[in-house]
Amino acid sequence: MTLIGWTLPQSATGRAAILPPPPWHYSGEVIAVDFTADAGRVADLVPPGFAPTGDGSCSFVFCDWSSAADADPRIRDDPAKGQYKEAYLVVHGTFDGKRAGRVPYIWVDSDLSLVRGLIQGFPKKLGTQHKTRPVELGRGGVRKEPGGRFAAHASVMGRRVVTLAVTIDEAREKTYPKGVAAALVHTRLWPAIDRPEPAVHELSRGTVADFQVGTVWHGTGELELGASEHEEIADLAPTVVGDGWVMSMAFSVTGGTSIPLGDASNGATG
Amino acid sequence: MTLIGWTLPQSATGRAAILPPPPWHYSGEVIAVDFTADAGRVADLVPPGFAPTGDGSCSFVFCDWSSAADADPRIRDDPAKGQYKEAYLVVHGTFDGKRAGRVPYIWVDSDLSLVRGLIQGFPKKLGTQHKTRPVELGRGGVRKEPGGRFAAHASVMGRRVVTLAVTIDEAREKTYPKGVAAALVHTRLWPAIDRPEPAVHELSRGTVADFQVGTVWHGTGELELGASEHEEIADLAPTVVGDGWVMSMAFSVTGGTSIPLGDASNGATG
Amino acid sequence: MTLIGWTLPQSATGRAAILPPPPWHYSGEVIAVDFTADAGRVADLVPPGFAPTGDGSCSFVFCDWSSAADADPRIRDDPAKGQYKEAYLVVHGTFDGKRAGRVPYIWVDSDLSLVRGLIQGFPKKLGTQHKTRPVELGRGGVRKEPGGRFAAHASVMGRRVVTLAVTIDEAREKTYPKGVAAALVHTRLWPAIDRPEPAVHELSRGTVADFQVGTVWHGTGELELGASEHEEIADLAPTVVGDGWVMSMAFSVTGGTSIPLGDASNGATG
Amino acid sequence: MTLIGWTLPQSATGRAAILPPPPWHYSGEVIAVDFTADAGRVADLVPPGFAPTGDGSCSFVFCDWSSAADADPRIRDDPAKGQYKEAYLVVHGTFDGKRAGRVPYIWVDSDLSLVRGLIQGFPKKLGTQHKTRPVELGRGGVRKEPGGRFAAHASVMGRRVVTLAVTIDEAREKTYPKGVAAALVHTRLWPAIDRPEPAVHELSRGTVADFQVGTVWHGTGELELGASEHEEIADLAPTVVGDGWVMSMAFSVTGGTSIPLGDASNGATG
Repeated sequence: MTLIGWTLPQSATGRAAILPPPPWHYSGEVIAVDFTADAGRVADLVPPGFAPTGDGSCSFVFCDWSSAADADPRIRDDPAKGQYKEAYLVVHGTFDGKRAGRVPYIWVDSDLSLVRGLIQGFPKKLGTQHKTRPVELGRGGVRKEPGGRFAAHASVMGRRVVTLAVTIDEAREKTYPKGVAAALVHTRLWPAIDRPEPAVHELSRGTVADFQVGTVWHGTGELELGASEHEEIADLAPTVVGDGWVMSMAFSVTGGTSIPLGDASNGATG
Repeated sequence: MTLIGWTLPQSATGRAAILPPPPWHYSGEVIAVDFTADAGRVADLVPPGFAPTGDGSCSFVFCDWSSAADADPRIRDDPAKGQYKEAYLVVHGTFDGKRAGRVPYIWVDSDLSLVRGLIQGFPKKLGTQHKTRPVELGRGGVRKEPGGRFAAHASVMGRRVVTLAVTIDEAREKTYPKGVAAALVHTRLWPAIDRPEPAVHELSRGTVADFQVGTVWHGTGELELGASEHEEIADLAPTVVGDGWVMSMAFSVTGGTSIPLGDASNGATG
Repeated sequence: MTLIGWTLPQSATGRAAILPPPPWHYSGEVIAVDFTADAGRVADLVPPGFAPTGDGSCSFVFCDWSSAADADPRIRDDPAKGQYKEAYLVVHGTFDGKRAGRVPYIWVDSDLSLVRGLIQGFPKKLGTQHKTRPVELGRGGVRKEPGGRFAAHASVMGRRVVTLAVTIDEAREKTYPKGVAAALVHTRLWPAIDRPEPAVHELSRGTVADFQVGTVWHGTGELELGASEHEEIADLAPTVVGDGWVMSMAFSVTGGTSIPLGDASNGATG
Repeated sequence: MTLIGWTLPQSATGRAAILPPPPWHYSGEVIAVDFTADAGRVADLVPPGFAPTGDGSCSFVFCDWSSAADADPRIRDDPAKGQYKEAYLVVHGTFDGKRAGRVPYIWVDSDLSLVRGLIQGFPKKLGTQHKTRPVELGRGGVRKEPGGRFAAHASVMGRRVVTLAVTIDEAREKTYPKGVAAALVHTRLWPAIDRPEPAVHELSRGTVADFQVGTVWHGTGELELGASEHEEIADLAPTVVGDGWVMSMAFSVTGGTSIPLGDASNGATG
């Protein structure tokens, strides 16, 4: 029998696979805070070829995602399959002479997102997240308007690793927060089972289309990073907490490109 | 020491209590479907004094809630505390000569909501829920517009008890779906620990203020009820599945009234 | 229609109720650590009539419970219904001249346990817990034997509130750790919805039968209490961390007794 | 900077990686049921080179695992990291002339287990599971003894896909249930991001050491497979439900071997 499926599990039909190949589509609600951390520690988190800005410039981003895939309508049809929460660190810098970002740590709450991320080179792990959802009516929640305070937090195995908030002051048109606009450089890494060397080890970049943002709300950020036995993000304790952002965002991923590590580095094993 | 707190746990400060007294405020995103079930089985689910419509008329409602309380700003400030998902059945009828609703079954996913509900007489249990969140941009999700299909489902101990969807056809102004507009009649029931008779057993009604809805989107409903060892809702298998609704909703609860069961009934134990 | 059920939701059959009345049976695996905290803060957590030992003596207990009820075989038959995790603080003292315990804070992970606890006067809230499960074979886990280190932790809304461990040194026959042997004094508190005064407010004690323990393993305890916006347990930061205990435990609860607060106190509202 | 880590996320220290390389150690509590399904559908689920028994012979296995790794003591030390639940289907047959098993579907509830499984070729997805935990004392739970009924169930996105039970009749020494003793043949599959062909696609087998079982309890099995939009296991509806088994099990995995698909097949794409 020919087993089919872009990922495991494969079957005669491929219907049980965790996810289909791209194109994938994303529509999300973002809360993000820019900050700076110890520049040396930030530099420790990037691959060969990626040059951090040098001042420890980072962003932390939370997003409630709705996602879809051209090859599998069940992802958009079933909110249990297509919706998930994501929290990630972005390090700002340049790669190949152009502005770029690197995501050293990222947590999600679904297996589709976890595996889709690992395939692209996002270093995803599972985490529990909560994030203020904007409301349109009444007094039960928070609106996207000046004075609205949007909070978010992420925990891993019961340890709070990120606690963040943005209090909106104004709408800013034609602004792209750097935390969400960066072109990301990833490491695709998949171990072999029969030898120590990895089966896959390469830099990669996503091919992104139709990137758009809604009204960009600017505000004052708050950010605390917490310690965990299993995480290292607390090493990036903020030295300055800067701008905060609340916005809708959408884009598609149509595929990606691979960059052999030998080309990107000076011999480091990356 | 005087221990304080409107609910347990009490302490010297009351800060650890599950929730404070009303006023409570609610802002939510609703997906609802009207349906009819066997009229006799529907009649089996209402208390003395409540007269079902006679045709088995019911609604099933999902809501993503953001909630707040005047006496505790932490509820709105922390999305883990104030936000939750809710799924409930409404039976339509009359009480005391006026149009009313009864909620025989309801599931939520937070302890604040569970206990706040039990105090009011909502028969809340925990359940896992997923519900399509509307998006504003891009191709990752579903928009509130004609053709948008909003899905929701609820599971209890791994059994899917409700699977529902609404495909929007049009906006309807000045319409209040009956599933969300009903004035509810609850049973407050709290056991004693030293005798078989309950410590609290009375009918009750919430005192609701500032009820409002956003644009009411009408559509075609889909609804399936599933069986579980621990639930009875599958006994209400839909005979007709009717209108569906997608909308924002908000209101406040400022308290409630109690109706001794002896006054409402002809001696039944209710 | 007569609606039946010891708790909500009531129905014609009572099959959907969260739980039936006692007798209830409990079989569990315990990890516990004795400690002392600031005596004044401990005294702030007890009701009128309960005298703490005066030296701030407390225990923190984790238990993996399997539970059953004579009136509902589904609880033992379905592990999703009858099994749950529990983490609680015990304050040691005397009540009515006899040795007693008080549980100011307790977290569980099921609605059956949450509501069953609130009915008895345990101040239960939901929390996420993990606890080392003893193994009998192989190298994947920890055995109940000298050198075995049993860990447990509890988190509430993503904040780690308790982290605990016991490294076993020896079996101790005929020993009852004070954290598990205390006769508990609870506050049953249930708000009214139509007035500020509670509908139920009384002290209570469970009627416990057939209490038994398996081999009692003694060891060295570790304990850290963490802060949360929603909890107060971190106020009891351990001044001394003492003995640790690992054991199987079982008992039945056949009912309880109520003590009007006016009898127990000198007029305090408790 | 050299980024290290056997899996993502990599860092300067490697401490944040999801998991380290083998050796890995496993100690677990098993409930398993043997059954037969439609032989054609079973044959549809195996890779080239694997010959099913021809009579549709399968087992379904639940296990509560405690796991450890030589290279990372945090896995055994923290129950949130090292303990997880697993539910899987085994198809019985032969590979390379010897008795072997194939796992077409498997669900777990931790990211460590999900990723460790995918690396080995287990087609893991996330699922919610509950499983009767044996007790040693009291009336709250079930003992490993004749008459004890052990139940387990697994759900994916709120759909119950497997419901199983074993009622013990006797201990059977020197018996290895076929569902747990099979040498497994996996497919390691990892997509590329820059082309349709996979980056990794090979058959593999784990290198298992120190396999042991405790007392093997035999009994009568019960098994139901349920349908889900996202799963295909319901296609294997049991035609005969056979023996059931309850036991402790342990082993170590020291690595694995890869078998290029071209060698195993006659040109099929697997």
